[in-house]
Amino acid sequence: MVVMAERLMAEPNRLHALADFGARLGAAKSTISEDLGLLRAVVERFGLGRIETVPGAAGGVRYRPVRTSAQIRALVERLCARLREPGRVLPGGFLHTTDLIFTPSLAEEIGEVFATLFEDVQPDAVLTMEVKGIPLALMTARAFDVPLVTARRGGRVTEGPAVSVNYVSGSSRMVQSMTLPLRAVPRGARVLFIDDVLRGGGTARGVYDLMREFAAEVVGVGVLVETEHPADKMLDRYLALVTYHGGGAAGEGLVSPSRWLVDAGGGGGLGGAVHRR
Amino acid sequence: MVVMAERLMAEPNRLHALADFGARLGAAKSTISEDLGLLRAVVERFGLGRIETVPGAAGGVRYRPVRTSAQIRALVERLCARLREPGRVLPGGFLHTTDLIFTPSLAEEIGEVFATLFEDVQPDAVLTMEVKGIPLALMTARAFDVPLVTARRGGRVTEGPAVSVNYVSGSSRMVQSMTLPLRAVPRGARVLFIDDVLRGGGTARGVYDLMREFAAEVVGVGVLVETEHPADKMLDRYLALVTYHGGGAAGEGLVSPSRWLVDAGGGGGLGGAVHRR
Repeated sequence: MVVMAERLMAEPNRLHALADFGARLGAAKSTISEDLGLLRAVVERFGLGRIETVPGAAGGVRYRPVRTSAQIRALVERLCARLREPGRVLPGGFLHTTDLIFTPSLAEEIGEVFATLFEDVQPDAVLTMEVKGIPLALMTARAFDVPLVTARRGGRVTEGPAVSVNYVSGSSRMVQSMTLPLRAVPRGARVLFIDDVLRGGGTARGVYDLMREFAAEVVGVGVLVETEHPADKMLDRYLALVTYHGGGAAGEGLVSPSRWLVDAGGGGGLGGAVHRR
Repeated sequence: MVVMAERLMAEPNRLHALADFGARLGAAKSTISEDLGLLRAVVERFGLGRIETVPGAAGGVRYRPVRTSAQIRALVERLCARLREPGRVLPGGFLHTTDLIFTPSLAEEIGEVFATLFEDVQPDAVLTMEVKGIPLALMTARAFDVPLVTARRGGRVTEGPAVSVNYVSGSSRMVQSMTLPLRAVPRGARVLFIDDVLRGGGTARGVYDLMREFAAEVVGVGVLVETEHPADKMLDRYLALVTYHGGGAAGEGLVSPSRWLVDAGGGGGLGGAVHRR
């Protein structure tokens, strides 16, 4: 049972044939099924995620690292507490989040939260913009068991023919460009965009434009931090975990869990969150 | 037992107090100890890593995702097979590795291999250079349960006061600079440098120089791919998994497991690999 738990949890979202477990463990199919039932109960009881069985010849069993609404709220509160630590507001009014983003265990939790909130969109790939989006996006891709694609700023790409688009950075109001190798995204792919911060939304808009060139679809946008200003973002639908109220506020007022997390109330689920601001 | 396995394996290298497990599971200490003994046996039997117990008041139990020599060799062979796929040699003679590096499950395996090979050096942090080093370095940091620090090319750093050093890129022979915020690395830290590729070794030398400014120590250098040329690298000690023989060779001759993996023979361990080229 431990071996099955390890295999399933080490490879989130990957389908494992029951016969493989039987062969590896030298156990009968009925024993495997019985242990799986027990495993499913334990995993759900302790809020560790969900074990799903897919019937049929191509079926099997997989582990989804879904987090409960309570776990998501607790993580966001924990992040807000860390972001209220002294010295986090940098010159230019930026919020210092790098140390949190690059702490693997935190990045992994955040990735599992995004994978939970975007569970219904079933992306074929996660897309991010270098550099600070990478840890969160990689861990989200890990939870979905899909590849990560990283757009580069400017034209610094050595992986063969590439596509560039221009975009207006919402913070600097400057025209910039992002580039992706042609081979990075297959036509028709369903892509989830994950980034560290959303200010004006210019980067996200650039991602929509870029994906259009690949005939790919952006099925969701998730960010760790959204800024309160400008209130008028260049895109309507995205999901942020934390709202940054700007360099002026101190202490409690500096950051808070994003509106939809508060609106969703204390007891209910967070379903449908993806389609709300 | 499943809950303990999940907690331990989800947080590699982190020490868990036995009392916490007892409290969470509502089980007596003797039951927990018994289950841990069984868990240790299962984990080792199936080559899943190692469960270690640390005695004393500040002690507890932790999981180390160490890979066996056979598992490391098998992964490197699998990587070589992927790297021999057609179309991997890019204009300029670069080897296209991005898709592999950004596949989370592969990055995680490679990170656990680095954590195994550098197990003895016990780093306080993993350091990498943006961009392609990040997934491998993040997964190595995950296996060690330490933070990742990412040096930026040029001076594009917004996290407050920063230190820059110049280095000579071994491939382009151009003088470049790398920058790290002052707060990113504490004085006296033991730092493991992980990157995607090592050509001339200029970047790694730059990292040594940079760490000297932080009064920090580079305790190891690990890369996924080393290039055969130039044979004369700017540093003596590093560990590469795969050797790239250059754009001229085709098929089998394009890449191979690095020398020390071959020299270590089929049966023996890979101990001491860190101190060899």
